[in-house]
Amino acid sequence: MNIILYGPPGSGKTTVGHTLAAQLGRTFIDADVLIAERAGRTIPQIFAEAGEAEFRRMESEVCAELGAQNNLVIAPGGGALLSEANRRKLEKSGVVFCLRADAETLLARLSAAGDRPLLAGPNPAEKLNALLAARRTLYDSFPEQVSTVDQSPAQVSVVILERLQPHEIPLRAPGLQHDILLGYGLLERLPEILRERELTGPTLLVTDENIFRTLDAGRQKTFAHRLPSVVLPAGEQHKNLATLERLYTEFLKHGLDRNSIVIALGGGVLGDMVGFAAATFMRGVRWVNVPTTLLSMVDASLGGKTGVDLPQGKNLVGAFHPPALVISDPLVLNTLPTAERAAGMAEVIKHTLIDDAEQFAELETASAFGSAAQLARNLSVKVRVVQEDPFEKGRRATLNLGHTIGHGVEAASGYQLRHGEAIAIGLHAELLIANNLKWTPPEITERVLAVLRRFGLPTHCPGLEVAHIRQLMSADKKKSGGQLKFALPRGVGDVVWGVTVPEDMIMEALWAVTGGG
Amino acid sequence: MNIILYGPPGSGKTTVGHTLAAQLGRTFIDADVLIAERAGRTIPQIFAEAGEAEFRRMESEVCAELGAQNNLVIAPGGGALLSEANRRKLEKSGVVFCLRADAETLLARLSAAGDRPLLAGPNPAEKLNALLAARRTLYDSFPEQVSTVDQSPAQVSVVILERLQPHEIPLRAPGLQHDILLGYGLLERLPEILRERELTGPTLLVTDENIFRTLDAGRQKTFAHRLPSVVLPAGEQHKNLATLERLYTEFLKHGLDRNSIVIALGGGVLGDMVGFAAATFMRGVRWVNVPTTLLSMVDASLGGKTGVDLPQGKNLVGAFHPPALVISDPLVLNTLPTAERAAGMAEVIKHTLIDDAEQFAELETASAFGSAAQLARNLSVKVRVVQEDPFEKGRRATLNLGHTIGHGVEAASGYQLRHGEAIAIGLHAELLIANNLKWTPPEITERVLAVLRRFGLPTHCPGLEVAHIRQLMSADKKKSGGQLKFALPRGVGDVVWGVTVPEDMIMEALWAVTGGG
Repeated sequence: MNIILYGPPGSGKTTVGHTLAAQLGRTFIDADVLIAERAGRTIPQIFAEAGEAEFRRMESEVCAELGAQNNLVIAPGGGALLSEANRRKLEKSGVVFCLRADAETLLARLSAAGDRPLLAGPNPAEKLNALLAARRTLYDSFPEQVSTVDQSPAQVSVVILERLQPHEIPLRAPGLQHDILLGYGLLERLPEILRERELTGPTLLVTDENIFRTLDAGRQKTFAHRLPSVVLPAGEQHKNLATLERLYTEFLKHGLDRNSIVIALGGGVLGDMVGFAAATFMRGVRWVNVPTTLLSMVDASLGGKTGVDLPQGKNLVGAFHPPALVISDPLVLNTLPTAERAAGMAEVIKHTLIDDAEQFAELETASAFGSAAQLARNLSVKVRVVQEDPFEKGRRATLNLGHTIGHGVEAASGYQLRHGEAIAIGLHAELLIANNLKWTPPEITERVLAVLRRFGLPTHCPGLEVAHIRQLMSADKKKSGGQLKFALPRGVGDVVWGVTVPEDMIMEALWAVTGGG
Repeated sequence: MNIILYGPPGSGKTTVGHTLAAQLGRTFIDADVLIAERAGRTIPQIFAEAGEAEFRRMESEVCAELGAQNNLVIAPGGGALLSEANRRKLEKSGVVFCLRADAETLLARLSAAGDRPLLAGPNPAEKLNALLAARRTLYDSFPEQVSTVDQSPAQVSVVILERLQPHEIPLRAPGLQHDILLGYGLLERLPEILRERELTGPTLLVTDENIFRTLDAGRQKTFAHRLPSVVLPAGEQHKNLATLERLYTEFLKHGLDRNSIVIALGGGVLGDMVGFAAATFMRGVRWVNVPTTLLSMVDASLGGKTGVDLPQGKNLVGAFHPPALVISDPLVLNTLPTAERAAGMAEVIKHTLIDDAEQFAELETASAFGSAAQLARNLSVKVRVVQEDPFEKGRRATLNLGHTIGHGVEAASGYQLRHGEAIAIGLHAELLIANNLKWTPPEITERVLAVLRRFGLPTHCPGLEVAHIRQLMSADKKKSGGQLKFALPRGVGDVVWGVTVPEDMIMEALWAVTGGG
């Protein structure tokens, strides 16, 4: 895994890069320096003589080259990641820390150097401000932000080194005892981690075609060559008994026995299915879950539930079979399609509503989500709730927030809406019920809707029919004793469960989110 | 369920029958009295005027009629059950207690009465002895034997009433907590038992075609009409993922949900499969196991293991999912084919070798096995062993006695040998190893072989190849760390586990049981 230091001119990429690389015993590469060396000219000379376009071409070349290498500390030029392609190449190879400082600090640092073509000439302050304004969205979009104001390079290095430490979150409940390892670059260390944790024995990695494609393209394939693997077709339509049968056959073909380890590398659908195959192969073998989506990292990979679908409904066949270990690497989120990532945010936001008002507040202003620390904090909400109520007798029902209606919305859309999108709409509708019951003031609903929208989630489903949603809600598993039980917020970080709601209030909320469709 | 009092003339069937019926508030029917009433003549008159053949015809008619009724106390004539057909009709309807007394006692009682045509004329003692000698095998063949010597009818009634009490055997181990109910007539009381034990909710009974046929023929169908049921094809070839899928579909069709109860009515194959379907439907619903074979009553229904086969091997897919209750009714054993029942005896005998020297001694002279008390005692061996070693770290391996070689024999026969037959041969071979190791004197082996043969089990497999058996043993699941571990007897009631055996001793034992094939 590479460490990429990014940020505006003067943010300290080069000085911090040198310090950090020395501490880690790695090579530091300043992309601009590399470009200048290769061109035999300074950057201002390239700009002046060949033009910015030529410089950007050289820069892309260097980004692709560095992204194909490993274990470097890299400082791309301040504008390098304006190109989506450059960004993808580097983000696939490692973690980006965006170094930040206010304009005044940046200007003071830059006045010492003279090789910044974009700020050359008169009024550098004005130019810098214009540049910062133009690039703010880009700089803000990295989950790892590091302030370098009043910090020495060594101090900044310490911060970065700390953030590189993997999080080890223990989950300890009756019948559910394992660790969750979460950190940058854990995926490429998978074989070593298994060895360190004594998860040895005949091992088979199962993934799907989508994940395999991204692996194959990047350096992460290196580890795949060291583990026998099976690639399944991707998608919920394959989460069925036929694929299960294929898995058993592959297990036997690869010589798995009772002492084996099965690794699920994929999203919730794959994890459910591989976990269930592990639960039932030879009455249960150990498995390791390596979630690759935001949704599965913060939610689906936790709790020990596994299963497959039947034509009659989702997850109708399953078992409780917790993995021996969950390994989450935030870097894999960089390869997710935007809509997929947004969908995962619904569960993230739900968790903050259940038990983390502070992270909810953070989300109200945050431009990015997905740092190891943010993920660890968010998934800890589910860990706490599961630990507190291992037998699903009480508080665990709060995790259904947004789901009572959300499942109905998801089903009514014919599963055209992603789970997370449906949950966002469900959250909206359930907040309206809470408003109606006078439990939650409308301001809370407005704040939640703002956060949902901020992260690209829908809050309405205009095409769907109220009666259809309502009917599919009734068929939902959360029903008990014939009556729908809701989890409803009383405020941010305070959710009440087991609530029955007058039928007309449910209908009213559904009318509001569908626009009366 | 009827109570049938049988035995030689003078054994007290009528007097005990009257007393017992009065105590139970039931109707007592003396078959001979019924025949005489209908004929308007005494039994001696029928014999004299119409001949014995005509009497036997009338007797069969009455047996069929009484066997179709319920809740009677019935005393068939002393020779009535010489006819297999009569016996089957009555045994399907209830439990037979065979009342016994020595010839002297019988004669003393009979001298008081004068209506016994078979003993009429001179030398009644000689005639009685001849009759007893001719019918000894028949009388001995009933598992329930009751001595009436020096006992009043009231005292005999008490003994019978005690034997009619169901046995309730608790199984208490980590993750394995349920009762085993064992008693005559429990099958027809199934719906009531479920209610009493609060095993309520949408309920579905699953059985197979063979069982369904016997049910349909007898009065036991009465309960089937009160429970929704599904009938699967019978046989291990259907214990697969396809049948599992069918089961899930039936569960949904019958409206089962998470609060449902699934009942498996059948042998080990059906119990394994239905148990696994219950284990995995909606991540696990409760199930009740109602074993209908000797093998499943004393062995397969205990321990919580469920599963289905794959084309590549048996029980490769499965789960640990103990039933909420096991209900065994010895009456269903009466409908088993003789070979099936004999096969079950292999595990019965194995249990006595592991931990019940007293019952082993009983088997050395017993002509019949299958009373509720015998079954309860025998299955308690497995219960004790499982409780003592719930995690299969130690003594539970003694249950593999006969199986290390037996599985190889079973597989080498292409599963043409029944499991129990293969285990009998395996027991033989493993005893020879124990002899060879000087652990067990050859006399023990001779005694075990005598008991196996007494109950109709094979001890050799002349058609099979030594090398083939040996190869299939290696593929067996009991292998751990590459080395075969045997459980071997050191004496009756004393089995040692985890024994490795020199290869030549294994081969020698296989040569002996195959005759060097």
